[in-house]
Amino acid sequence: MHVCTPSTTQRRSDRRAATREPLILVFDFGGTKHAAALLKPGQRHWQEYRRVLAPPGADAKTDLEIARSLGRELLQGRTPLAIGVSFGGPVNAATGEVRLSHHVPGWENIPLSRILEDEFGAPAAVDNDANVAALGEYRFGAGRGYNSLFYITVSTGVGGGWILNGKLWQGTEGMAGEIGHTVVEPNGPQCLCGKRGCVERLASGPYMAGDVRSQLLEQPERGEVLRTLVGGKLDAITGQTVSLAAEAGDEVARAAIAKAGWALGTGIGNVANLINPQLFVLGGGVTKAGEQFWQVVRQTAETTALPEVHFQVIPAELGDEAPLWGAVALAEDLLALSYASAS
Amino acid sequence: MHVCTPSTTQRRSDRRAATREPLILVFDFGGTKHAAALLKPGQRHWQEYRRVLAPPGADAKTDLEIARSLGRELLQGRTPLAIGVSFGGPVNAATGEVRLSHHVPGWENIPLSRILEDEFGAPAAVDNDANVAALGEYRFGAGRGYNSLFYITVSTGVGGGWILNGKLWQGTEGMAGEIGHTVVEPNGPQCLCGKRGCVERLASGPYMAGDVRSQLLEQPERGEVLRTLVGGKLDAITGQTVSLAAEAGDEVARAAIAKAGWALGTGIGNVANLINPQLFVLGGGVTKAGEQFWQVVRQTAETTALPEVHFQVIPAELGDEAPLWGAVALAEDLLALSYASAS
Repeated sequence: MHVCTPSTTQRRSDRRAATREPLILVFDFGGTKHAAALLKPGQRHWQEYRRVLAPPGADAKTDLEIARSLGRELLQGRTPLAIGVSFGGPVNAATGEVRLSHHVPGWENIPLSRILEDEFGAPAAVDNDANVAALGEYRFGAGRGYNSLFYITVSTGVGGGWILNGKLWQGTEGMAGEIGHTVVEPNGPQCLCGKRGCVERLASGPYMAGDVRSQLLEQPERGEVLRTLVGGKLDAITGQTVSLAAEAGDEVARAAIAKAGWALGTGIGNVANLINPQLFVLGGGVTKAGEQFWQVVRQTAETTALPEVHFQVIPAELGDEAPLWGAVALAEDLLALSYASAS
Repeated sequence: MHVCTPSTTQRRSDRRAATREPLILVFDFGGTKHAAALLKPGQRHWQEYRRVLAPPGADAKTDLEIARSLGRELLQGRTPLAIGVSFGGPVNAATGEVRLSHHVPGWENIPLSRILEDEFGAPAAVDNDANVAALGEYRFGAGRGYNSLFYITVSTGVGGGWILNGKLWQGTEGMAGEIGHTVVEPNGPQCLCGKRGCVERLASGPYMAGDVRSQLLEQPERGEVLRTLVGGKLDAITGQTVSLAAEAGDEVARAAIAKAGWALGTGIGNVANLINPQLFVLGGGVTKAGEQFWQVVRQTAETTALPEVHFQVIPAELGDEAPLWGAVALAEDLLALSYASAS
């Protein structure tokens, strides 16, 4: 892996400065898919947008090659003003270094912002996807006009990002927001993290689907709608099929959704008591599970919170693009900083 | 209740400005006892200190009369530069208005800072005791040199206060820090707040004592040390006697301390995953329960937190005076603000 020193970056930036264009380049490094987009500062729609699936067996090198190629394709030889990056794993936002990826090998201690700065000749800011998505929803989505919020994505995993006093709060090691691994049922089922009854173990799509599958195997007389939905192939049950079956009135599916909603609602109520933010913004596939899910989440959260603690729980607005829009906010903040220091 | 308008305050301040002394006056309005102290800005020991018990049946009026009298006694006719106040209940720190007291009637919507400003002719800052104690430990105690910490008091109740980025985080309604009412055992015993298995229900002194008492009533053959300690009078068991008996090897007491430590440790681990602060500072009577308690708290907290999340759990240093020292920090911040705006 080529690692450039700051001075190299400086030289390349200087060399290209003459041809700089009023453009922001953003990346979203997901576990299985990558996206990149281009827009002008202040613009609120993509000028160009590309999304690709990572090839099977991808590692950090493959991911970086994909990012380079997406970036070159979008820029067509132009040099942007700034780069914003969302990364699907723990990041040291202060140095722009990736700590690791839980899904893709080879990402340990990779200086991602420096690599992109060297490649594209512009300053880059990097943060993890949950933080960046929180920033995206705060600046451009459901959180506009609020000052403190907790963004939660409930999907393959359950994670979150904090906005406090209008700024990202990443925690002292960049690890804040892990509501998925707070314990709400200490005697509950075991999570991959080793603990029992984490919010993620009870509310994430794959775990919910797995629990439903086990139930249907044990109780062949139950879950008619679900069985029909997957043509009898229990292995085909996903979080999404559970949601669909619940909406169609399947009892097993409804119980699973209620349990997931209870776990998430308890987690949210606990968070409200601890931090007292104005708003919870919920995104990710599981939050599309329909009105029953939202009712249970909101009711449990309100019951868990103290009577003096008030908040709203609302759906995210930016969907899968929240991390990319958060990356835009990171890049625009870099520009604001450089304007401020130049003036 | 006499309530002065800002203009009255202004007039009184002006009138007295000529005789202002380089003094800071601080108050701690507790539920059952009140304290006040006087010191010079920058001084790190009390010049004068007074503490009194509230009379039986006290209300907000009595409390305020006590505070006025303590303040006058300390000031001896002098006018201080600033006043800092810790209040045992929810407060709107921005306006200096008390929202209510859970222990003393009549405190609903009392403009405490304005009342003290009017009485003593100097600007006053007010916040709730857990927040102010957190600030005290951060500025002058166990939290010196750290940037983010959560202070927890485990006593009659369980509450906490946040320092994030070197500043108090009170939450959008001043309600942040309520770790005592986060749920760690949803099927556990019922708390006064209505929920089951709150940290406070499992770890606070009176609840712990009550649980031990019930056990000893049901199992007359157990708890020999405890029974001896209270001369057979089970009603005399307190959190402190449970701690003492545990240190002396009493099994029932040791189990109670382990349960309390487990509940608090789970709460702390959850908080670490959510906010990723550098430090947890623990104060209050129950934290004096000896090494067994601390071991269980630390071990449970570490097991509950993700492997990437690191933190320390250490004892508070300022004891019962943490709120008063935090009030000093509030007052010194007022002075810094007024110097900054004057220059």
